[in-house]
Amino acid sequence: MKKELSAPTMKDVAREAGVALGTVSKVVNGLPVGEPYKRRVEEAIQKLNYQVNSYAQGLKASRTHTIALLIPNTVEPFFASLVYHINLALLRRKYRMLLCSTDSDPGMEQEYIDMARQNKVDGIIGLTYNPNLKIEEGTPFIAIDRSMGPKISCVTSDNFAGGQLAAEKLADLGCKNVAFLRIGSSLTNEPNKRKAGFENGCLSRGLHYEMKILNDGDPYEEFEAFLTEHIQDGKLSFDGIFCVTDHLAYEILKTLRRLNQRVPEDVQVIGFDGTRHFGSLEYTCSTIVQPVSEIAEMCVELLLQENAPVKPPLICLPVSYAYGGTTLEERN
Amino acid sequence: MKKELSAPTMKDVAREAGVALGTVSKVVNGLPVGEPYKRRVEEAIQKLNYQVNSYAQGLKASRTHTIALLIPNTVEPFFASLVYHINLALLRRKYRMLLCSTDSDPGMEQEYIDMARQNKVDGIIGLTYNPNLKIEEGTPFIAIDRSMGPKISCVTSDNFAGGQLAAEKLADLGCKNVAFLRIGSSLTNEPNKRKAGFENGCLSRGLHYEMKILNDGDPYEEFEAFLTEHIQDGKLSFDGIFCVTDHLAYEILKTLRRLNQRVPEDVQVIGFDGTRHFGSLEYTCSTIVQPVSEIAEMCVELLLQENAPVKPPLICLPVSYAYGGTTLEERN
Repeated sequence: MKKELSAPTMKDVAREAGVALGTVSKVVNGLPVGEPYKRRVEEAIQKLNYQVNSYAQGLKASRTHTIALLIPNTVEPFFASLVYHINLALLRRKYRMLLCSTDSDPGMEQEYIDMARQNKVDGIIGLTYNPNLKIEEGTPFIAIDRSMGPKISCVTSDNFAGGQLAAEKLADLGCKNVAFLRIGSSLTNEPNKRKAGFENGCLSRGLHYEMKILNDGDPYEEFEAFLTEHIQDGKLSFDGIFCVTDHLAYEILKTLRRLNQRVPEDVQVIGFDGTRHFGSLEYTCSTIVQPVSEIAEMCVELLLQENAPVKPPLICLPVSYAYGGTTLEERN
Repeated sequence: MKKELSAPTMKDVAREAGVALGTVSKVVNGLPVGEPYKRRVEEAIQKLNYQVNSYAQGLKASRTHTIALLIPNTVEPFFASLVYHINLALLRRKYRMLLCSTDSDPGMEQEYIDMARQNKVDGIIGLTYNPNLKIEEGTPFIAIDRSMGPKISCVTSDNFAGGQLAAEKLADLGCKNVAFLRIGSSLTNEPNKRKAGFENGCLSRGLHYEMKILNDGDPYEEFEAFLTEHIQDGKLSFDGIFCVTDHLAYEILKTLRRLNQRVPEDVQVIGFDGTRHFGSLEYTCSTIVQPVSEIAEMCVELLLQENAPVKPPLICLPVSYAYGGTTLEERN
């Protein structure tokens, strides 16, 4: 046998085994082939030292080079940013992206998952709070922010560390008595860890803290009532507030103005997400920044590495703090 | 012949003509078929009173039920909103949408247009400022905001009327001496008509006006210099400013704060787009609202009506004014 200078190709295997190219393809993809042919192909693979990875990827016949992204909408800034970065990460790899905004019709999510089962798309990246979604084992699916099962990788920010960082920042900036405000899905999901991280940070730094937790659909007025209860002689007892999202922080800043509390002089506010005005200008508030572009890259990499021996169940990416006008500026 | 209760189907034609379903399909799509078969199918079509539209659409063999959307990015709020509404308009019609964010790589736009030529997608909706784009006649393409040629429909807001409305509003709200500020592409495009509309409105309402026009890439500081030149004894000579976008209005509001000008007491500001905080909350400034959901519906309708006898070259949809805190409130 002549010495191979480059990695052997499927053609080399076919030549070595004395079979047609299609036969090699069938063997590699586990399709039925007569036993003698199968043995010859397997022997040739061994002899030429084929790497399963390289040929399995090249041969998969049903490759569409299309990925579907399921996301509630594109107008919430965090979602808009995810869509943009996932789109760029896919286009850079010559993949096309089908977009499916799902919040007006959650039933559509199942259709796209079925498309992946039928190889009409190569895989799905999904941020969904639909508890009824059925994803069969083996479906190429990467979840964002909410685990869809033990065999499906979920990519998220390190929400626990983010909550902890918010508490530590407020402590560093001189706060003593802080509040955590949260509104969101009641389903188990990764962003819920912001609360636990914040509590942990408060305890380790000796901050007194209170919590007000609402579920999606509850009236915002409950936050105003909660804050009003904590005002005595015109003064809010909290000197720091951590809001579960920048969106909530934006609403709370309005509430604080109505209650005649100055930000950041009377009370400092930190949000979560890293939202920027008009998508590119300064931060809408002081915030724990989610690494959106890294989340996007990670989702795409994990989805396309289909032969990876192990799928990590949960990947948490590091967050950072950014000043956005609603905290005191740090003196360095 | 039995009375048909519902619209006749292709199967009914096949039965009536005594031919196979595929033969009807070929005749309808103009593919070669033996003359006697062709005649029988045509007679059956006439007898059953088939509507060409209904069967031609259902039979087109190359239909992918996929549309591509080309848009600079998804993080500018106006683009994010367009993506969302076009996505919903397509999904509602059981179409899939490929998304291609183009501002990082304009070369990709041509690839998607070529896909449409090759029937890999059914058509394109594109908002692009790429002057080198080649779109052959007959390519199913709907443009937004910039005409791509006489045979390609362009959907846009009524930008001229929007500029005019801004001038009229400022006049109604008591302004006498106003300014128009613009930064954007130097290419011919529909949003440029905002300027002409504004001038027209100023002239008809007897407003004194000045203009400051920058091109993409020019430094924003030129606006600050322009406004500073118009301050005497701490007082800005303009009592109203129309900004070509809400994004620019947002920047100008910051500039005015730095220059110690109160909004709306000293100077009223109107933007253009209808941007809302976090995509769904109140307007970021007083603004001329683009009818984004109507633009989305119109683009999708025009693209899918492939049998329409006439393609309108330019469709301008009506805008409206919305109060967003940077003008005086109207007393009714």
